[in-house]
Amino acid sequence: MYDLAIIGAGPAGMSAAVYAARYKMKVAIVGANPGGYVNDAHLVENWLGEVSIPGIELVEKFKKHVKSLDIDQFTTSLRGIQKNKDGSFKIIKDGESLDTKRVLLAVGTERNKLGVKGENEFLGKGVSYCVTCDAFFFKNKVVTVVGGSDSACTGSLMLADIASKVYLVYRQGELRAEPSWVEDVKINPKIEVIYNAAPTEIVGDTKVTGIKLDNGKELKTDGVFIEIGTTPGAAITAQLGVKTDDKGYILVNDAQETNVPGIYAAGDVTTKNEKLKQIIVAAAEGAVATYSVFLAKKSDK
Amino acid sequence: MYDLAIIGAGPAGMSAAVYAARYKMKVAIVGANPGGYVNDAHLVENWLGEVSIPGIELVEKFKKHVKSLDIDQFTTSLRGIQKNKDGSFKIIKDGESLDTKRVLLAVGTERNKLGVKGENEFLGKGVSYCVTCDAFFFKNKVVTVVGGSDSACTGSLMLADIASKVYLVYRQGELRAEPSWVEDVKINPKIEVIYNAAPTEIVGDTKVTGIKLDNGKELKTDGVFIEIGTTPGAAITAQLGVKTDDKGYILVNDAQETNVPGIYAAGDVTTKNEKLKQIIVAAAEGAVATYSVFLAKKSDK
Repeated sequence: MYDLAIIGAGPAGMSAAVYAARYKMKVAIVGANPGGYVNDAHLVENWLGEVSIPGIELVEKFKKHVKSLDIDQFTTSLRGIQKNKDGSFKIIKDGESLDTKRVLLAVGTERNKLGVKGENEFLGKGVSYCVTCDAFFFKNKVVTVVGGSDSACTGSLMLADIASKVYLVYRQGELRAEPSWVEDVKINPKIEVIYNAAPTEIVGDTKVTGIKLDNGKELKTDGVFIEIGTTPGAAITAQLGVKTDDKGYILVNDAQETNVPGIYAAGDVTTKNEKLKQIIVAAAEGAVATYSVFLAKKSDK
Repeated sequence: MYDLAIIGAGPAGMSAAVYAARYKMKVAIVGANPGGYVNDAHLVENWLGEVSIPGIELVEKFKKHVKSLDIDQFTTSLRGIQKNKDGSFKIIKDGESLDTKRVLLAVGTERNKLGVKGENEFLGKGVSYCVTCDAFFFKNKVVTVVGGSDSACTGSLMLADIASKVYLVYRQGELRAEPSWVEDVKINPKIEVIYNAAPTEIVGDTKVTGIKLDNGKELKTDGVFIEIGTTPGAAITAQLGVKTDDKGYILVNDAQETNVPGIYAAGDVTTKNEKLKQIIVAAAEGAVATYSVFLAKKSDK
């Protein structure tokens, strides 16, 4: 029987695990993708103490920290969570299950899709949701990024180092990323921003050759990177009766408690940091959640 | 005229400064002691990504990050803050003053000290003011906690999971923590409460070996955790009409805004993280505060 099972191995989950181990809890962390989306970050430049570090290198540091402590790590996918008769929980994952007194949901979010023709058809044949993973395949080619957020702008900047030309297509009249990224995008000679336009179709033959826009134009492009935000993982919350907002983000209080006793949530999946989804915020929430579990555990008789 | 002046150069202030610079704000950070209490930590082992790092080295990393960006840093003491007629603020510090549209108070707290011989001498050599930070260093050792509050009791319970023996020394005849904590302390076989006693001296050689009490006894102990509270920097808040709780901690909302328009607060000085004063939590609050300033600034006409 674990004191705490952490579902999700991104920054929130890993920070929570570090605190739990140091509180001498019997702790498990379950997540198929340690580091989560931090892996996809070309460079991280706002994690205090690291001037500029590739996302995968920061994840390596996080992983090393988790490995250094007495934490049972399972890099497998979650199948489900059931409530046991004694009030504890059963975590069902690939291959086996484990029992735990308390659960921390740090499952993060899933990336949003455009929902246009060609998007699924050409996935891996020119369509991508991960600039860091796939930029290198577009060396000296023409690429199109869809979106106007930080990740769309930083993705465009990264692609501009590799591709011959980058279109940035955004449906609004002004990019909504950090001003420093917006400025960098605007002065980059390889990036052309196309405002007030949305894709209607991704076209190609065996792979992507172009993208049609709702302004009637078609851009010739070898790749389409879709950077239009994320949706929280909702299946688990419904299963457990955990309350969310209308978008599916888990409602938590200042102690990171959900409405279900014994279930906590931290990181991007919560309502708390919906505005500022940052590694540092997720990591702090993980620490606070574990402290709440520690206090609850002490009250167990 | 600065967009943001940050008062205090601990983790909250430095993280806020990094975010502000990346948001292309004109930002100043004023603080005589960059890194704050992190400098006093013998080892930090719960800052995600750093398995074990001396506090001063972690501060060096933070400083390097701040120096790498366009941030005006003043390592001088604050003399006062005045409100200008146009709604901006004047930051008065040693030597000169500066004007800013918005202010972030990240002034931290002062730890209450026992004021006994050996307390300063053995800081980081067995004397600690933070159980969550340092408990892990006393595995299977004998430790003494001084105090009778919630943090003294929860600290003792936390230590009881790790140390071989915990003395809890309190000058009153009854612990003043929440009854459930008091009960847990009393039934814990590893914790021995010593009532009506106050330390007179912390003794040792290269590190702590014992603690003398005013009842004439001396306890053999490897560590002394002083948990007799903290005092937030109150002078500035009174000056500005910033609301605090009855202990002087600044009241903030989820956006780190105080009751005074244009004044934000983050880190240990706020009510928000009164329970879990950790570097990661302070740094996250600094980031959130800056984001709130960024949003407010965007609305300026």
